[in-house]
Amino acid sequence: MKKSATWIWYPGDFEIWLGNRCNNRRTERGAMFPPFWKQDSHYVTVEFRKTVVLEEDECIIIKTEGQFNFSIDGKLNYPHAEQHIPKGKHTLSVKVWNQATPPALFVEGNTVKTDASWLVTYEDKIWIDENGVAHGCGIYMNAGAWNFNSSDVPPSQFQLPRKELLPVSIESIDDKEKQLYGTLYDFGQEVFGYLKVFNLEGGNIRIYYGESREEALDPEHCETLDVLEPSNIQRRTNTSTNTWHYELDSKAFRYVFIEPTPGHTQYDGVAVDYEYAPFDESRSGSFRCSDELLNKIWQVSAYTLDLTTREFFIDGIKRDRWTWSGDAIQSYLMNYYLRFDTECVKRTIRQLRGKDPVTSHVNTIMDYTFYWFKSVLDYYDYTGDMDFVREMYPRMKTLMEYCRGRLNDEGMAEGMPDDWIFVDWVDFPMHKRGVLCFEQILLTKALETMATCATLLRDHPLDNPPQGSITPDEYESDMLAYGVLSRQLLTKWKTAFWSEEKHAYLHAIENGETNPQITKFPNMFAILYGYATPTELKTIQEHVMDNGNIEKITTPYMRFYELETLCMCGEQKKVLEEMKSYWGGMLHEGATTFWEKYNPKEHGKEHLTMYGRPYGKSLCHAWGASPLYLLGKYFLGVRPVKPGYEEYEVRPVLGGLEWMSGEVPTPFGKIQISVYDDKVSVYSEGGRGVLVLGDQRYEIKSGERLEILKSKD
Amino acid sequence: MKKSATWIWYPGDFEIWLGNRCNNRRTERGAMFPPFWKQDSHYVTVEFRKTVVLEEDECIIIKTEGQFNFSIDGKLNYPHAEQHIPKGKHTLSVKVWNQATPPALFVEGNTVKTDASWLVTYEDKIWIDENGVAHGCGIYMNAGAWNFNSSDVPPSQFQLPRKELLPVSIESIDDKEKQLYGTLYDFGQEVFGYLKVFNLEGGNIRIYYGESREEALDPEHCETLDVLEPSNIQRRTNTSTNTWHYELDSKAFRYVFIEPTPGHTQYDGVAVDYEYAPFDESRSGSFRCSDELLNKIWQVSAYTLDLTTREFFIDGIKRDRWTWSGDAIQSYLMNYYLRFDTECVKRTIRQLRGKDPVTSHVNTIMDYTFYWFKSVLDYYDYTGDMDFVREMYPRMKTLMEYCRGRLNDEGMAEGMPDDWIFVDWVDFPMHKRGVLCFEQILLTKALETMATCATLLRDHPLDNPPQGSITPDEYESDMLAYGVLSRQLLTKWKTAFWSEEKHAYLHAIENGETNPQITKFPNMFAILYGYATPTELKTIQEHVMDNGNIEKITTPYMRFYELETLCMCGEQKKVLEEMKSYWGGMLHEGATTFWEKYNPKEHGKEHLTMYGRPYGKSLCHAWGASPLYLLGKYFLGVRPVKPGYEEYEVRPVLGGLEWMSGEVPTPFGKIQISVYDDKVSVYSEGGRGVLVLGDQRYEIKSGERLEILKSKD
Repeated sequence: MKKSATWIWYPGDFEIWLGNRCNNRRTERGAMFPPFWKQDSHYVTVEFRKTVVLEEDECIIIKTEGQFNFSIDGKLNYPHAEQHIPKGKHTLSVKVWNQATPPALFVEGNTVKTDASWLVTYEDKIWIDENGVAHGCGIYMNAGAWNFNSSDVPPSQFQLPRKELLPVSIESIDDKEKQLYGTLYDFGQEVFGYLKVFNLEGGNIRIYYGESREEALDPEHCETLDVLEPSNIQRRTNTSTNTWHYELDSKAFRYVFIEPTPGHTQYDGVAVDYEYAPFDESRSGSFRCSDELLNKIWQVSAYTLDLTTREFFIDGIKRDRWTWSGDAIQSYLMNYYLRFDTECVKRTIRQLRGKDPVTSHVNTIMDYTFYWFKSVLDYYDYTGDMDFVREMYPRMKTLMEYCRGRLNDEGMAEGMPDDWIFVDWVDFPMHKRGVLCFEQILLTKALETMATCATLLRDHPLDNPPQGSITPDEYESDMLAYGVLSRQLLTKWKTAFWSEEKHAYLHAIENGETNPQITKFPNMFAILYGYATPTELKTIQEHVMDNGNIEKITTPYMRFYELETLCMCGEQKKVLEEMKSYWGGMLHEGATTFWEKYNPKEHGKEHLTMYGRPYGKSLCHAWGASPLYLLGKYFLGVRPVKPGYEEYEVRPVLGGLEWMSGEVPTPFGKIQISVYDDKVSVYSEGGRGVLVLGDQRYEIKSGERLEILKSKD
Repeated sequence: MKKSATWIWYPGDFEIWLGNRCNNRRTERGAMFPPFWKQDSHYVTVEFRKTVVLEEDECIIIKTEGQFNFSIDGKLNYPHAEQHIPKGKHTLSVKVWNQATPPALFVEGNTVKTDASWLVTYEDKIWIDENGVAHGCGIYMNAGAWNFNSSDVPPSQFQLPRKELLPVSIESIDDKEKQLYGTLYDFGQEVFGYLKVFNLEGGNIRIYYGESREEALDPEHCETLDVLEPSNIQRRTNTSTNTWHYELDSKAFRYVFIEPTPGHTQYDGVAVDYEYAPFDESRSGSFRCSDELLNKIWQVSAYTLDLTTREFFIDGIKRDRWTWSGDAIQSYLMNYYLRFDTECVKRTIRQLRGKDPVTSHVNTIMDYTFYWFKSVLDYYDYTGDMDFVREMYPRMKTLMEYCRGRLNDEGMAEGMPDDWIFVDWVDFPMHKRGVLCFEQILLTKALETMATCATLLRDHPLDNPPQGSITPDEYESDMLAYGVLSRQLLTKWKTAFWSEEKHAYLHAIENGETNPQITKFPNMFAILYGYATPTELKTIQEHVMDNGNIEKITTPYMRFYELETLCMCGEQKKVLEEMKSYWGGMLHEGATTFWEKYNPKEHGKEHLTMYGRPYGKSLCHAWGASPLYLLGKYFLGVRPVKPGYEEYEVRPVLGGLEWMSGEVPTPFGKIQISVYDDKVSVYSEGGRGVLVLGDQRYEIKSGERLEILKSKD
């Protein structure tokens, strides 16, 4: 089969450009709401090059996004789209300039085709002396590419697929007291898409969107709205022969309330063009068990993650629609157990990092910077994709330099005036100034990640490294340096924060003074990241995690880590109860997707409020979907032992369920597991696996079903 | 008079964006030829803010380039173009997003109007906590602005004015030997503009441009050409009722040779839309003297500088058309004595610097980075504009950090593999590896410039510095640090390179070994930059500058500094002869503008060759215009003593001329000088001046003509 050509660009530039389009699409009551951090741009002039050896003369066709030139062996040709390459060895070079969208290239000949093996630079540094001799050397990388394999659909045309959905119920509203007149459409569940109002004639209409019925029916306070003014700017599109609509920007909602200009407006109903990231059901994860509530929780989690998996993994679909690093690292982990959409992971990691210079923490949040490092290594663990680690490493290094340049005199991470210390949204007063134990733990892991990545890259050298690549010696020296730094920091915070008296890591030190507050955050991360000694672990379990006097976590965000910690301690039974109670609680409140925050103590409309606004809370928030990850990793018990599931482990735990069965996606296909109290069955299409049941270990061979009968507990 | 509103943007972003447009417009035989260094981009999302105090309610109109939002006192409004501001004190904020061109803002109300007093940032870092409280703080600067005072003409629409010129002669070419058939048009002198071929019908035509007749008549080798294919892509424009033409990109030429498709093509003649940077003759410099050749040299220099003064000061108009830092610093200095176009100086300095991170020397050339620093201080000396120094300082600092990060173990600047060490184009083998004395001198001046600028900024604090501004203490500490560094480096190179035996600074040290080569470059810069002791100065004059065995300089570029050095030593008489011989030599060869390189020993077509190409040389090169500077500063003798001519000196030297008179532009108008051997007359519209004649000093009062009769020499 002939390999096809594909569009290529400077790695990361497509993502940075697309990220700007996506992150700027947030609106708040009709006003655009761009991010408050620096938005980067693609390199506007890029050189692509490739050395080819042709057995015969060949004609190539060059397509670009932007103005281009073409040279062969350093000699510029007249820039025809069609170029003739004589047989033999030649270096082809195409420079492309494009200010508005990333310079991109598609070259197709009989054998010459653009792909990620082409090299790329934003400055070739090649200058010509007074005698016409060329000098200089740039830094080259492998080109960025994805699936743009048609010359007619260049990267800048990218958009997600859509399908039309109709409302499931329609209700006339005529509320004299509130002076509300119009029609309320219910789409049955939360959706993301483009509302179409068909054949609108007459005056303006006002459209109020709601994740809840309450929100859609509250024109004064709903978070998103549209004003359709046919006389004004909207673009009109034909839906079918007799139907047309004005184009609106995407919104997220379950309910839509349409308020027409009384007596002036007519229209023929509405629909939504639901927009989604496509996935392959046959390569996706699944989960079924004996508990129907848990099955529902898994399904709603899957729908929540699908809705927030888009061009990037975003936080929530109604309000921010931004990439947030701390949210995203959870989405990645859930995704490894649901769709295994590795391209979306890479896009999001690249987009979050942006470009140098670093002028603030990722999303301005210190903890979010630290998570970002770990997300690169997580990705490697699940996919085994060393190329991506290699691509990211230079930007990991400059980001780490930024972090190190902001340490306090004791070498600890302490918030500066323009750093946001997030940790979590909490309902109790939590100390966020000074040195937080939580942040030191995250930074330690980030430094350790740097050392690990440097080691991996040292040990996986390229056969023909592009000009200007980092050498194995440089990786080696980084490995040593970051290793020392992470161990030093570990000692510092362990000494500074552990309280023998309180049996816990304390939360904060400010101006040299230790704050007596104890929170779950540093304690559970000490366990999660493997920094707690076995003794500490038990002490923390007893005195912090199981201690009813410690403030409860009220976001699914930190419940993710809290429940993971419990799973690591073998408390699946307790986790099962917590999931059913917490996520089940949201379902009980009518959730069709999981929320940004949920405090079981609140009631009714209280569940909708946040940020001081009655509908400020996001009711479809990626971090709400963590049961996907917990059930896949700690109940079905599947995880890679060597990168990319080259080796893996299945360690199922029923945790009180009668039975469960499910599938976990991997780079080579799926691992299927069924667990009953008397039988375990595993089948995998690849990799070398081990099934662990108590003290017993069974080899799982690729392509062979393994069935183990076990004595009843 | 009511102040008008003006378009504003993030400072430097208009220049960086415009620079990409200009630098990418170079073509080589029809192929685009972009720069080989990194091209930066504007910030795509920018916040503009202004705190206003209104005595009455006011309506404002908002125009933007890009999508915008508007908030008042932190509260987002629906983004209508018209907004109502209640009386009282309010903070207005407009965020604008634009990927393709710089986000720009124009706000006009009765009293509220955009201008450079508005603040701007690319990351406000303002985040909202779970309770709706805003936190965070960005770094703000004053907005960038120029003269876009009409809301209908935003910055992205900027273009230079044009006027139509006709050829001065037309010649039929029918050369059977060379198989050349067509028409040669001569515009009488070098021009820059857009060729118009009127009412072209029938087949294609090929257009060959030439700075020389030889080039235009050499279709195989001319540097620029156009192929007009009416059936293809060109845009057709009506010139007048009965005349139309296809739009072509700008070219530089004196001659155009048009080759029609035989028997198929008809057209009604040609013209050029000459494009130029406008200037005010009444505020320009001038020079007249008793020597007609020198007058001609001054006029051709002025025309050369005018042609290369465009959106930016570019090197030459035919080939590169790029901003080059080493070329530009000379253009600035000439410009201070010709048009005093300070906006073009600022644009060029900003464009050359670009954005962080610094990934190569300016234009990839080490010396060009070092000149860039000095250009900022030169600008301040001539204009007194402290705001610009303040704007540039953060970028000066990061550029200097880049330089310091590349010093060798001895703390000296030594070329790394991707550094271009330029010094000059020379016709003899010149050592460019290792440590060059010349580069150390330039770096010493750059470090000294950093210290001087830090001192100035410390001493000129703002009344209300924007949030995040550098504090006087930080400037103070920079001042001390850079002062130490420059003095240390001075000692190092003086010790390392001065040869008592050779009576000169040696040229290079490579791998610890001193190269015996002596060139004029380090020696004349030691004098120029004031680092040579009086004894060294005399020694250098005798043993280097006046030494016929030292290789001659063959570019007007370094002749600029060579002749300036002679002027500083009081050798105006010799400089006059050199100017008449060297620049007169080019005129004798038929120059209508001055060249990139001129070696009087070459003949005929040899003068056209460079870079291994028969017409590679630029025949209109800014650095050829240095007589403007030399005559203004060292013959008329005018220079600022305090920044912006607050105080100035007139120290006229006839240098062998019978008489001279001229004008020098300043921020407050012109200084007029006439010098005869028995009389000197000076008139100035501002500033405090001193006329220096030998040992005598005479005060020049603003608005009063000073006439001094002197005894004949």
